[in-house]
Amino acid sequence: MTVPQISPPRRILMGPGPSDIHPSVLAALAAPTVGHLDPYFLKVMDEVQSMLREVFQTTNHLTMAISGTGSAGMETCVVNLIEPGDRMVVGVNGVFGGRMAEVAERVGAEVTRIERPFGEVFTPEEVATVVAKVRPKVVGIVHAETSTGARQPLDEIAKIVHDAGALFVVDCVTSLAGIPVEIDKLAIDAAYSGSQKCLGCPPGLAPVTFGPKALEVMDQRKKKVSSWYLDIGLLRNYWGNNRAYHHTAPINMNYALHQALRLVLQEGLQTRFARHQLHHTALKAGLEAMGIRYSVAAETSLPMLNSVLIPDGADDASVRSQLLNEFGIEIGGGLGPMKGKTWRIGLMGETAQKSNVLLFLAALEQCLNRQGIRPAPGAAIVAANALYCSINN
Amino acid sequence: MTVPQISPPRRILMGPGPSDIHPSVLAALAAPTVGHLDPYFLKVMDEVQSMLREVFQTTNHLTMAISGTGSAGMETCVVNLIEPGDRMVVGVNGVFGGRMAEVAERVGAEVTRIERPFGEVFTPEEVATVVAKVRPKVVGIVHAETSTGARQPLDEIAKIVHDAGALFVVDCVTSLAGIPVEIDKLAIDAAYSGSQKCLGCPPGLAPVTFGPKALEVMDQRKKKVSSWYLDIGLLRNYWGNNRAYHHTAPINMNYALHQALRLVLQEGLQTRFARHQLHHTALKAGLEAMGIRYSVAAETSLPMLNSVLIPDGADDASVRSQLLNEFGIEIGGGLGPMKGKTWRIGLMGETAQKSNVLLFLAALEQCLNRQGIRPAPGAAIVAANALYCSINN
Repeated sequence: MTVPQISPPRRILMGPGPSDIHPSVLAALAAPTVGHLDPYFLKVMDEVQSMLREVFQTTNHLTMAISGTGSAGMETCVVNLIEPGDRMVVGVNGVFGGRMAEVAERVGAEVTRIERPFGEVFTPEEVATVVAKVRPKVVGIVHAETSTGARQPLDEIAKIVHDAGALFVVDCVTSLAGIPVEIDKLAIDAAYSGSQKCLGCPPGLAPVTFGPKALEVMDQRKKKVSSWYLDIGLLRNYWGNNRAYHHTAPINMNYALHQALRLVLQEGLQTRFARHQLHHTALKAGLEAMGIRYSVAAETSLPMLNSVLIPDGADDASVRSQLLNEFGIEIGGGLGPMKGKTWRIGLMGETAQKSNVLLFLAALEQCLNRQGIRPAPGAAIVAANALYCSINN
Repeated sequence: MTVPQISPPRRILMGPGPSDIHPSVLAALAAPTVGHLDPYFLKVMDEVQSMLREVFQTTNHLTMAISGTGSAGMETCVVNLIEPGDRMVVGVNGVFGGRMAEVAERVGAEVTRIERPFGEVFTPEEVATVVAKVRPKVVGIVHAETSTGARQPLDEIAKIVHDAGALFVVDCVTSLAGIPVEIDKLAIDAAYSGSQKCLGCPPGLAPVTFGPKALEVMDQRKKKVSSWYLDIGLLRNYWGNNRAYHHTAPINMNYALHQALRLVLQEGLQTRFARHQLHHTALKAGLEAMGIRYSVAAETSLPMLNSVLIPDGADDASVRSQLLNEFGIEIGGGLGPMKGKTWRIGLMGETAQKSNVLLFLAALEQCLNRQGIRPAPGAAIVAANALYCSINN
């Protein structure tokens, strides 16, 4: 068997993640590997933790990167807080809320789902009603539903959960470093993210953070965590002061996350949030000028994940193939019940740039034309340019 | 906070892993990231699977890389085969056997440990006795105990396990690509490894393989696997023909593993095994010429992990620090009960080279001198060189 050397095509990653990677992050990824207990690597871990705290807007000591992808981060948060028979309420308005509920059930939680159609968000009232009835140990909710593009307001729900004495677990996979994730301000007890979205690092690590109440609950567990690999009690000894060997951390992936976090903090969180919002607004102006509608209400649209309805007459797969093959642009299809109904256009991290927005709009116009759909020629670019010029950017 | 850019020191990784990384593997790691469902990445996955089959010496279709480190591979094999109440026999003669037992207990297995002091291996007879008594569903054993340097012969035990109708799970984390791991020949039902040992790839992926009997058992499970992230039933749909989204694979880590596997197969398995054996023999000749003794019997010494007794009068931490700081050489300390008693000197993958052996012996002589230990000057180099010259290499 002759397998050719790795030589990936250059892509513009405008899907639901991974997003584009800055060359300096790829360079850090390829820095010489050292041992997982090397003093140099221990310093890298400290710095990763310290930078993650800034990005999560928290002082939580237990803030670190799990050696797996975002879903491993989800599993870490759930399985460390849940013991068999514990009650958990999970908001399910997309694929990832559903996943959180399933992860909890697998370790024996009695899960109550609050369900909403894909694309909608939860009201504080409905959460309050269920929490009052169920009296759960943990309430889990998705901040940015990557499957639908919906942004869940958290402030009031955080208060409701805490007033009921429950722990609040939040999925920030897609939101972290793209919109504010205010762990301490909202007293979120546990949260997880992924490296490959707005953080701008390749996939493979899952930042997590745990607050003091979560630590207390973990310390009082009666039964060992079902997963040895994701047991925070053990991981704390490696990422904490003891530096006790647990597993061999993915050294080079941590280098990459380190550099990605440096870029986030050099830009500044507020500037970065504003950048995501700006390019979202321009993209939206362009898409709407082509007659394309969002699948989510404007007030709950995520800037970094634009979920739009596939126009009548357009073939989902053909358009995505043409974008990929002729323009090198990846966008995502719909997930779950949205399959074939929506496109998910990501503007995450490095990807959120003016040139990507303009190229994508021009390319999509060409693709739609091939499908026999004829939006007003050039209208998308005119609208996006007008938006950019109006804010003097 | 000003965090400096990643700039790791150059190390010679002669510890228990990670091992040295070939520059072409680091280059592959830094290749442009594409999406996890990109046709290019799906081809990379196919090629990784196909090359892993060659290295595992198997035709098992279900052979792939788990998105976590070696311990995640262990957990994957155990939690997919075990249901609560199942009986499992685990050979514990080191840290990793102990870990396997614990992973199984956490998901409800009734575990029977066969125990041996660190450094020893199991006889077929003792395994037969326990298996006959316990009648387990699964027997787990470590092929290459990274904590002790002991090599467990598998042939007869495989037969005993199969004759008893049990599944045979083997930890090949340190052995794969360094000594023969013959999955099909021994009909091993499930095995796991790590990317960062003899495969010569950075840590972060865990190759696994499952045979037909293991698949049958998984298909007949009554209860869902406790881990969603490691559920082979779901992972099969992503790595198999469906390509159904499960999680976002660590794209760049898979590039690196792809290139590492190419190097393994270009060298050829037999040549690679012989290379590990050769440099082990030279290292051993040198160490013994300095009066250093192995902590494992010669007939069960692993070539890629040389566990030796720290000479009387030498301070463990001082010697390892000097090696690291003055020579850039990392070796490992003892784990568990061996802490402070042994050094673990790795010759894995890229690290298994003549120049590393000679430099290490010369450097260790200097370190021992500083400790007031005076082996016959130059004797180690003389012995290693004599060995190399005798085989005309």
